[in-house]
Formats: sequence, structure tokens, C-alpha cells
Amino acid sequence: MLLEMISTGEEVLSGQIVDTNAAWFADCMMNLGIELNRRSTVGDRMDDLCAIFTERSIEADLILVNGGLGPTSDDLSAAAAAKACGVPLLEHAQWRSHLEEWFRKRGRTMAASNLKQCLLPQGAVLVDNPAGSAPGFRVKLNRAWLFFTPGVPVEFKQMVQEQFVPFMQQQFRQGLATRLCKLLTFGHGESTLADRIDTVPLPDGITLGYRPSPPHVEIKIFARGAAAIASQDSYVHALQQLLADAVVSTRYSTIAEEVHHLLSERQVTLALAESCTGGMLSSQLVDFPGSSAYLQHCVVSYADAAKTGILGVDATILARYGAVSPETAIAMAKGARSILDSDYALAITGIAGPEGGSAEKPVGMVAIALTDREQCFVQVVQLSQRSRNLVRTMSCAVALDMLRRHLLGTGPLTSYPFLPARQSYREAHH
Amino acid sequence: MLLEMISTGEEVLSGQIVDTNAAWFADCMMNLGIELNRRSTVGDRMDDLCAIFTERSIEADLILVNGGLGPTSDDLSAAAAAKACGVPLLEHAQWRSHLEEWFRKRGRTMAASNLKQCLLPQGAVLVDNPAGSAPGFRVKLNRAWLFFTPGVPVEFKQMVQEQFVPFMQQQFRQGLATRLCKLLTFGHGESTLADRIDTVPLPDGITLGYRPSPPHVEIKIFARGAAAIASQDSYVHALQQLLADAVVSTRYSTIAEEVHHLLSERQVTLALAESCTGGMLSSQLVDFPGSSAYLQHCVVSYADAAKTGILGVDATILARYGAVSPETAIAMAKGARSILDSDYALAITGIAGPEGGSAEKPVGMVAIALTDREQCFVQVVQLSQRSRNLVRTMSCAVALDMLRRHLLGTGPLTSYPFLPARQSYREAHH
Repeated sequence: MLLEMISTGEEVLSGQIVDTNAAWFADCMMNLGIELNRRSTVGDRMDDLCAIFTERSIEADLILVNGGLGPTSDDLSAAAAAKACGVPLLEHAQWRSHLEEWFRKRGRTMAASNLKQCLLPQGAVLVDNPAGSAPGFRVKLNRAWLFFTPGVPVEFKQMVQEQFVPFMQQQFRQGLATRLCKLLTFGHGESTLADRIDTVPLPDGITLGYRPSPPHVEIKIFARGAAAIASQDSYVHALQQLLADAVVSTRYSTIAEEVHHLLSERQVTLALAESCTGGMLSSQLVDFPGSSAYLQHCVVSYADAAKTGILGVDATILARYGAVSPETAIAMAKGARSILDSDYALAITGIAGPEGGSAEKPVGMVAIALTDREQCFVQVVQLSQRSRNLVRTMSCAVALDMLRRHLLGTGPLTSYPFLPARQSYREAHH
Repeated sequence: MLLEMISTGEEVLSGQIVDTNAAWFADCMMNLGIELNRRSTVGDRMDDLCAIFTERSIEADLILVNGGLGPTSDDLSAAAAAKACGVPLLEHAQWRSHLEEWFRKRGRTMAASNLKQCLLPQGAVLVDNPAGSAPGFRVKLNRAWLFFTPGVPVEFKQMVQEQFVPFMQQQFRQGLATRLCKLLTFGHGESTLADRIDTVPLPDGITLGYRPSPPHVEIKIFARGAAAIASQDSYVHALQQLLADAVVSTRYSTIAEEVHHLLSERQVTLALAESCTGGMLSSQLVDFPGSSAYLQHCVVSYADAAKTGILGVDATILARYGAVSPETAIAMAKGARSILDSDYALAITGIAGPEGGSAEKPVGMVAIALTDREQCFVQVVQLSQRSRNLVRTMSCAVALDMLRRHLLGTGPLTSYPFLPARQSYREAHH
């Protein structure tokens, strides 16, 4: 099966938005063991759309088209598909009554422009969109099935998973059985991981992929064929042994999700104190339903007055060591924990930049503390100064990894090869 | 001039890395007023590369090719270009001595694999790469100039700016000038906006684009040619008059960034209390350098005990009205504001789902309060239940819009057509 993707839209073509749908789709196909042969990107121009539909339909078996199904005048995918197929656009009565019903239920009047979304090329097969007003559809042209999907990411992803993938699997029987395992790593660069992994012989039929997605690098171990699938588990196990500390999850795709599940399983409580990360750590955990079972509160103590006033940090500690120091991080963690007597607390204070650094405390220097009822751990790391967002993202990951290690009993302090640790220690509570 | 781009490489095609070079290039061209006609992405396979070079060379005038010039065996761009042109690869003596000199100066021996980078298609024009070991080159094939550039972003960008752009400008005299204006809207769907905007006659040479990116819809107004550029400002002004409340920024791409600048300009202070959004609102503001000037603290009062213990919410209010109620939202906002006597405070409490809803208080019901020293405003909105993340994102945007409107003196309470307001009122402080 030759699979291609066509991304449409001026914003994607002109670089105003990065084509995350395309990256997501390719990754999704890779997880199924299917290779994409080509991706093309064109703007919202009738001639360009028609030309590419026709041209690619001669070469490919299946083409996923993304975007251009909205209600406005620059959404031309359905009209271009009709023109390429040499058929008229016809109103799809069933979708029209579905849309009218949808608006009626919400007490709203359907805009005239939504009517345009009921027009499909004659003979097209409607593809349901439970999340939005634009239906998907598919048409056969020359050699290929063209499968049209909406550009809104949440609608696109649902349609790919629930409709495109089953259609593809039914239409084109895949060859060999495939199986994918993943290891989520943190704290090592892609090349360091690869150099280590290359020392283990790769079994036949197994391929490796590295997907850096800060703060993590995900390692994909892909097995193709029954023999490879049979040897996959022991190979993955060997990699886990080899990488040890660097593997932060074998079941989830972020360290936040791993920690969310560890906390939920253990029925413990957590409090947070954030300074430079400004609520990012809290928000990463609240992303998951059920986080209310363990997360009691987070204090974003952005001003020094909030550190003393809400968290009870001693003003003399702030004055003597500064807001970004292991001493302040420890005091923030202890203060956050004690407010509701939580089982654990994490605190982060650092210099996210781009301003505010000094020779002694440069941008990217972050102090992170973890406390429970008995003891406190702190480390000061020097993160890349590349961007404010990266400093904040990496700070959250280090904090989560400290808690993860502590929950698993491996000791919260470790050294990450690519984060020079400036200072780290443990102290018992007074 | 018909301009296209071809991105090469398995990592880009398979979505393991997002093609930021492509987005950067298209944006760079747009800033020069030049439209890209198509972008194609193929893997590192000889047949696919040859096929696409030949095929696009018949259609386009100028093709920027990115990637595949490295020293390893999967870098095939030069060999594929030679094959497509029907010429042999020849060693470029000048680049070889340049490379040898480069390694000698650094006291390193040139690896055998670097010799491969001295091989160019016969007749190709070398393009200097001052930043790396892979030279660029250009060849004429059929109608097109194919311009080959390295994949390493820093080398790629320098080559585009210093060599590709001057070549393009000299080779193809550019046509019309272009200019882009943007309006950021919130609270209306794409189709409602389009229906309203369609009532204003569109001047010649101006095109419109809608980019929904929740919680916003961005409207882009492109002008092409001197006459269109001259009429653009008055057309944009007419749209602003027409859309009034819906336009939340004419200068930034998120409502958070607009509010960040308003707060910074006015030198006022802000405190936050978040429940269901869990720090997302705080984190959105902390994203911007300089937010420490106004943001004093945020309390993520996820547990009821945090609402009473940290924010001082009266336990009888919680018991009588529940955690998700206008009364609790007001008490949270007042409590957050008074901790450090901030000028303003925002509070959000709601049901993000997917669990936890009831008939009376369904998932997506969110109470949002704004307070200053004199008065308090609250509204309860019913958001789409589509996803936990969407409820949280939209809640933050409504809160930010209330503050934005208040700072601009337009009154914080408004009704958003697509968010049924359940209740909203203003109360003076006691």
C-alpha cells in the first residue's frame, strides 16, 4: 500500500502554524508499522488543490487529505475534490438534518455558512465527525482513495483513530504482524542513548526509533514479524537494564502521567510551591482526571512577599541566600507541605530568563526541593539557557523525576548527564 | 515565479521531528511577500528523491531542497540530483581542499565519510556553507532551478538568507508587494465571524483567512499590490467596528499576551486563585518575560481545605453553595486579592470533567470572578464538554477577557454567543 498525506491551508504552507497534524499522523502510522511515502502541502487555491488531488491519485493507493472543510470561503477541499473527480457538489441531506438538530439542541440558529459544510462531491462516502460541524468524506479517484479530514486537531485525531485507521486496515490488508514497545527516557541526549544502545545486538526484524520531545526522549522498539515479536520483550528488558535510571516510564508518554498514576495508586497527597515555573507543574498534573485525589494545592509564590506571606518562608533566608537558592527551595517545600499536612511537597525556584541572570546565578539555574514528613532533598541544576519555556519545562521534569524516584524508593537525587548539578543534598527535618 | 520546497529525510516524513525548517522558510518568504506554491516531503529513498526532483522540475521555476547533504549513507540528495539530471557525480576539488584545510586548522583528520560531501552533480554550481562541512549547490533541471541546502537549522538559515534569497531576487524579479494584518477574536465561532464579515464588501486584492486555534479564531487580512495595501487599513478598521467585542487583540496572537502587555503597561498587580484550571492561567502569564512585574501569586486551591485554609473562603459558603458556584468564585477572588492587597484578582472554579458532573452542575460549568478594591464581577458559563483540556483552556480565556475588558473600561461582563451564560452579576464590596 502506498500511503500519502496532503496538508492544505495557507497557514500551514506559509509557516504561520507548524503542521502538528502531519507530525501526529506520521507518528500514529509509525505506531501501526506503516510508512508514509510522501507528504505534500498546498495552499487554499482551487487550481493547486485540483492539480495535486489528480496528480497524487495516480501514484498512491490511499491519501489522507487534511484541512479545508470549514464553513468559510477559503475552505475549498470539497469543491476541489468534486472538480478533480468531474462531478457536481450535492447537498448531503442526512448531514444537513444532523447539523440543524445539533444547533437546535444548543438553542442556536445554524449560520448560513454552515450549509456549505453539507455539500459533498457526488458519490462521496460521508465520514462522521462526532466532534464538529464539518463531516469527513472519501472518494475514489484513479488508483487512490482520497480520505478528507478536518483541520481542527481534536476532530482530526478522533476521525483518524475511529474512522481512517479501520478503513485502511480493512481496505488494505497489512502484511506482517507488528508490535511496538516504547521506553520513555529523561536526562540523556539522543546520541548518548544511541551510543549506549548500540552496544546491545539488535535482533533481526527489530528496528529502533528515537523521538526527542523535550523534556523526554522516547525510544520506540518496533518488531515486524512473529520471530521479532517473540524476541522483543527480552530485548526491551535488556535495554531497561542498560539504561536503568534514564527510563522514567514504560507505560506512559510523559513523566507527569507516570507520576500522576504513581500518586493515584499509592493514595498519598501532594502540595506544590512554584516560582519560575509559575503553575506549569500543577497544570501538568491537573491535566489528568483524578488528580484531585492527591493534589491538595499549589502556591505560585511569584513575589517574595508570597513566599513569606503564604508559604511562611523566613525573610532572613530570602535575604541571606536569595530567592533562587537551595535554602529557599527547602523552605518553600516545607511551607507548602505543612499548610494542609500533605504527605509530599515539591518546590521549584529558578531563573527562567531571558533577563534576571547574574554571574553567580545565571539564567537556567534552578533549585528544586522535595520534602516528606521526615526529610528533605534539594538539588540545584543548570539548565540550557535556550528559552524561557525550555527552562520551565525541564524544571518541572526534574521535580517530577525526584518525586518519582522517591516514590519508587530509589533515592530522589541522581545526576543527569546533560544537566550539570551545582549542588545537591539531603537533610532531616528539625 | 512558481516557488516550491522539497523537504527530505525519514525523521521529517515520519513525524519524529516537526519540520521547523519548512515553517521558518515559508515565514521568511512571506515576509518578503513571496508565496510558496507547494511543499513536498519525502524520505531518504533514491527512487522517491529522483522522482520528485524530476516531477517538480517540470512545474516550478525555483525549488528549495532541504536535507540529505550529510556524510552518512542515508544522505542521498546529491546522488539523486545527479541521477535526475542524468550526469555523474564529480569531486569538487575546491571544496575538498577547503574541507581538508578546515579539519587541519582544528587539528583533526578528515573522516573518509566527509569525502562524500565533496561530490556534486557534474555542472552544479557550488553554494558556500560557512557554518558546516556540507556545501550547498544548485542545478538547472527542465524548467526549474533546484537549490540544495543542508538540514542543520543554523546552516540552513544562513544559506537561505545569504545565498538563496539574493539568487532568487536576482533571477526572478518579484511582482506585487504584499502586506498582512491580523485580528485576534474570542467568543465567536469561525462561521459566525464569517457571516458577519461577509456583509462588508471586500476590497480588490484583499483576501481573508480564518485560523481557529482554541480558544481564539485569528482573522488574517492579506493585501496584494499597492492599491490593496492602501485600502487595507480602512478595511481592517471597518472589521474592528463590526466585530467590536469579539476582537481581543490587534497586536498579539493570544489573549494571554494581550493581557500581559496591558498589565505591564498599567503597572498594576494581579493575584490568581485557580481550581479546575490548576495553574494553567498562571502558567500562561508566566510564559512571558516580565510577568513578575504584575503577577504576585497564584493559589491553586484544588482541595476545599485549600480554599478555606489559604484563601480564607468561608466554610459556610462552600457548604451552602458548593465549590462550583458564583459565591465561592467571589470568595476565592476576594481572598486571593487580599493576601498581598493586589490591585486585581481572578478566580476560576468549575467542573473540568470527564467525571464529577451532575444534572444541576454539569461538566463544563465554570464560575469565574474578577475583583478589584471596590467591586466584584462574576459569571457562570457552560463550556463545551468535549475535553478536560478544552474546558480548562476556555475558562482561562474567559477570565483573561473579563480582566482585559475591565482594564479597558468596557465592563467585564459580556455574553459570548457560543457560551451560554447561566448567571452573571456585579456586587460592590461590603
